[in-house]
Amino acid sequence: MLKTIGIIGGMGPAATADLMLKIIEMTDAQSDQEHIPMLIDSNTRIPDRTQAILHGGEDPVPEMLLSAKKLEAGGADFIIIPCNTAHYFIGELEKEVSIKFLNMPVETAGLIKARGVKCAAVLATDGTCQSGLYDRVLRANGIEPIYPYPDQQALIMSVIYDYIKKGITDPSELPCSEMQRIRDDLEDRGAEALLLACTELPLAFRIMDLYDDSCVDPTEVLAAAAVREAGATLRPGIRY
Amino acid sequence: MLKTIGIIGGMGPAATADLMLKIIEMTDAQSDQEHIPMLIDSNTRIPDRTQAILHGGEDPVPEMLLSAKKLEAGGADFIIIPCNTAHYFIGELEKEVSIKFLNMPVETAGLIKARGVKCAAVLATDGTCQSGLYDRVLRANGIEPIYPYPDQQALIMSVIYDYIKKGITDPSELPCSEMQRIRDDLEDRGAEALLLACTELPLAFRIMDLYDDSCVDPTEVLAAAAVREAGATLRPGIRY
Repeated sequence: MLKTIGIIGGMGPAATADLMLKIIEMTDAQSDQEHIPMLIDSNTRIPDRTQAILHGGEDPVPEMLLSAKKLEAGGADFIIIPCNTAHYFIGELEKEVSIKFLNMPVETAGLIKARGVKCAAVLATDGTCQSGLYDRVLRANGIEPIYPYPDQQALIMSVIYDYIKKGITDPSELPCSEMQRIRDDLEDRGAEALLLACTELPLAFRIMDLYDDSCVDPTEVLAAAAVREAGATLRPGIRY
Repeated sequence: MLKTIGIIGGMGPAATADLMLKIIEMTDAQSDQEHIPMLIDSNTRIPDRTQAILHGGEDPVPEMLLSAKKLEAGGADFIIIPCNTAHYFIGELEKEVSIKFLNMPVETAGLIKARGVKCAAVLATDGTCQSGLYDRVLRANGIEPIYPYPDQQALIMSVIYDYIKKGITDPSELPCSEMQRIRDDLEDRGAEALLLACTELPLAFRIMDLYDDSCVDPTEVLAAAAVREAGATLRPGIRY
């Protein structure tokens, strides 16, 4: 019998639906009943993670913990979180529930290590970058992390918060050429892989036509890991 | 404070993710926290609804009831179900939980009545058609329902089960011209609206480039009703 995937969602809600769709699309199933059961708490009451890490904003842990306990009580066999920044707090959640978490940064670092990547650019929120979340796990896997320069990072934050999280998805409104320059610059600096380590960025990159094989979407890596953990088979041709 | 939407999903899983995305896209929100909280049980253990209604297949009510009670216990304020056929069983669920259900066929019939439609074609599974689910609610609103002929209905079932539910979404593989003829024929017979009353059909129609303003997607109608019921504001320009 397939295990039930629990998802702490709402960070943001669109990224949650996107993870759900990825899991469905990656599962080799011929009918509804062959798909993996999922219990999803799209808990939009969870405060902003970057605000909490960097600016003394409201602690997101109590609401995340309510969600984790709800998923455990509802029969989830393991938990995933489609928000990179939220992984800063995952240790506090692991202490309080008895079911396991699949950790998105850990799964992602393991994957790119297996591909032989030695230097990876981390594109993420200020919270994820400055917390050192990916830094630690990449270095632990022998991978050198590099980051955009401060003015570039400000533009990435703007794409996440001023465009994608507000639902602006028309490419003509997005700063496509500036983002292209950031991308080129990171590759000139030695990045062999671009970690789009905020759930809004793969969507932004696809809209801006900047997504290619050097991009790694940690949400897709997590989705594939969850399909395997649940005991289902991946469709042929999945990259992760 | 926004109400929490409970969703009994998994019938099918992709339709569940689609409903979730529609609710997010329809909500006038500027940040994660302004979106509506949702608790979603994508319960793929629920047996096939058409099989149960027409062919003595396993009763889906016990699993649907487990989901409904899980949503109620988890803090959902009301429940929606993104599966038209499943609404055949909604009365049995309403007896067992104390929170309300928004009913997709009832919401849809009310909407097209308000638009002045007098005759509507019902495109759905054999289970939905033969159970009279839409028939009763349309007639109660003064709308004449018409149905595809048996050979046409067989093709619609094939599109749902042999293509969309199996994940085949390449238009070159789908029977586009045959579906176009069914559509034209229903309009010749007097249909002013085409109710795409199986959650897989709006997707199929969009892939086959057959979706236009005469199509009514009950899932979209339900999504808009849920946004209003939750206490959020619809984005400007929503059709429903």
